[in-house]
Amino acid sequence: MKPDDGSPPAGRSLGELGEFGLINALAARLPASPAAIVGIGDDSAVLAAPDGNVVAAVDLLLEGRHFRREWSSGRDVGVKSAARSLADIAAMGAVPTALLIALAVPESLPADWVLDFASGVAAECDRAGAGVAGGDTAQADSVIVSVTALGTLPSAAAAVRRSGARPGDVVAVSGPLGHSAAGLALLTAGVAGPGSTPVPDAGLAALVAAHLRPSPPYAAGIAAARLGATAMIDTSDGLLADLGHLADASAVAIDVSAGQLALPEPLLAAARLLGRGSSSATNPGVPAAFPAAMQWVLTGGEDHALAATFPPGAALAGDWRVIGVVRSGSGVTVDGEPYAGPPGWRHF
Amino acid sequence: MKPDDGSPPAGRSLGELGEFGLINALAARLPASPAAIVGIGDDSAVLAAPDGNVVAAVDLLLEGRHFRREWSSGRDVGVKSAARSLADIAAMGAVPTALLIALAVPESLPADWVLDFASGVAAECDRAGAGVAGGDTAQADSVIVSVTALGTLPSAAAAVRRSGARPGDVVAVSGPLGHSAAGLALLTAGVAGPGSTPVPDAGLAALVAAHLRPSPPYAAGIAAARLGATAMIDTSDGLLADLGHLADASAVAIDVSAGQLALPEPLLAAARLLGRGSSSATNPGVPAAFPAAMQWVLTGGEDHALAATFPPGAALAGDWRVIGVVRSGSGVTVDGEPYAGPPGWRHF
Repeated sequence: MKPDDGSPPAGRSLGELGEFGLINALAARLPASPAAIVGIGDDSAVLAAPDGNVVAAVDLLLEGRHFRREWSSGRDVGVKSAARSLADIAAMGAVPTALLIALAVPESLPADWVLDFASGVAAECDRAGAGVAGGDTAQADSVIVSVTALGTLPSAAAAVRRSGARPGDVVAVSGPLGHSAAGLALLTAGVAGPGSTPVPDAGLAALVAAHLRPSPPYAAGIAAARLGATAMIDTSDGLLADLGHLADASAVAIDVSAGQLALPEPLLAAARLLGRGSSSATNPGVPAAFPAAMQWVLTGGEDHALAATFPPGAALAGDWRVIGVVRSGSGVTVDGEPYAGPPGWRHF
Repeated sequence: MKPDDGSPPAGRSLGELGEFGLINALAARLPASPAAIVGIGDDSAVLAAPDGNVVAAVDLLLEGRHFRREWSSGRDVGVKSAARSLADIAAMGAVPTALLIALAVPESLPADWVLDFASGVAAECDRAGAGVAGGDTAQADSVIVSVTALGTLPSAAAAVRRSGARPGDVVAVSGPLGHSAAGLALLTAGVAGPGSTPVPDAGLAALVAAHLRPSPPYAAGIAAARLGATAMIDTSDGLLADLGHLADASAVAIDVSAGQLALPEPLLAAARLLGRGSSSATNPGVPAAFPAAMQWVLTGGEDHALAATFPPGAALAGDWRVIGVVRSGSGVTVDGEPYAGPPGWRHF
């Protein structure tokens, strides 16, 4: 082990910084968890759970699969890895409290990249009201991040599961849909990212940002529980795929109304810019104009928005907007028909 | 996504099984957590924490760095990845309750490997009294495992931290020391593993098993808290390195008595077999005979035994055995002298 000599890590590689120098540098940049009684630096963290329950989720983020270092800065990866796991806490209606971060990186990686990563984690923790309570570091040939998020509920019975949707409920979403997929399409087409000209306008730049740094609506998850949500899920695989998980768990059918889905101007602008505005829609429920934009909304993954069901007549507040209904049966339809476009994200 | 068609996964690759088929097959083989209110299959797990606290730790296990698939079966990797994180819970004096497992594997990996992995996780969960409450799966070029372990304490104040050792305390250990390093040396020398002749005797085979499937003394961690342990740590980096972490955190010095360290016959047999019994000791406190065995005991990593400090006169029970004393000062010595052998495991 190489002891941290206290000098600033800027310009040094991780090999030069050493494991304990890295841990010290990270710990100095990460906010402490408000629930931590024992935080970073012991064998385990100890967190207060005054309400008698703990909500927990883990997500892996792998270089080359979930992000590319050419497109994503260390800060971007920090934000995204924290947001993905914190969104799973919000999707239970719970309040995020703490993260445990396992990080493996190549020895040659500049220490600055890891410090940027820490600043991204810190920024997303601030958005969610959480902090970092522990972690693990290792060496690997590529960057590997595993983030465990912990949270709490007023009572365990208050958890909003995937399985509580009932026929007659309305389906609503909070947070952007399709923005991450559109941003990825812009990056893939070279419209944004290294070697490309600057992104033409702020709306398109926001789509790229939505892909690189998703921004889950944490408060909306907590609000949904208070508003009586019967089921909820994080839209990580794509709206239709995730509503499918919810419908399966609840043993119900869900019908989405295409007309209730917003197609914000940046999504339409991205579809036009990428020359995708002219292909014809394959589903009669999908507007003929700009099918790419609608496909991003229906099937694009990694938005980390929230989709939930509420009893009919629930007084939805905040960003929650109705997009469909729950019926008896199974499966997900768009305007009453199976969606004919490609399915959502598939891991294998 | 490919739905699980319900057929047995034997003989299929993960690509054929599909992500959800894999998750279903894993879930069927993993024991549920006794604390789980919501387990595998929702966005997050929800666990009961009736004592108002949660203990949490995460560890990464990477193919090619922490294990080799030529040496470790899927079951071995399951046991080891669970044991590493569960040992961190035990090192706080806490009772393990649940694991979250993030697993990334190559698409070409046989599904049987992953099912063996699940059986290993299940076996170690049984030893610890814990279960699996959630996880994540992804595809990668090599096997990546991140295990988050959760546990509970009678009260948060009951946590045995690294920082509580006081001059005059005794230092004690529970669990084998040096066995994992000796087993690794046997594997590296080709005495065990693929292409080697069968391991000559049961004692040597047990050393190899200790490396492939560490067996942390969970009950001893809980007992240590009851016995009044002032500080505790899991011996993952090597006894002297880990006592160094404990001494640093407690701002004390620790002196280990070489004469109080057991050198079980299998360690001596391994040293003889590997031809390491004849080199001379560089430290007068280390017996001239079989320095390799003593070096494994002092510096070998990955035993996942427990080292703790207790007030003088504490009535140690079970497997706890005294190996040294806490003094004023800093650093770790062996029989009053700095140890001259190589340091413990270094990640960077």
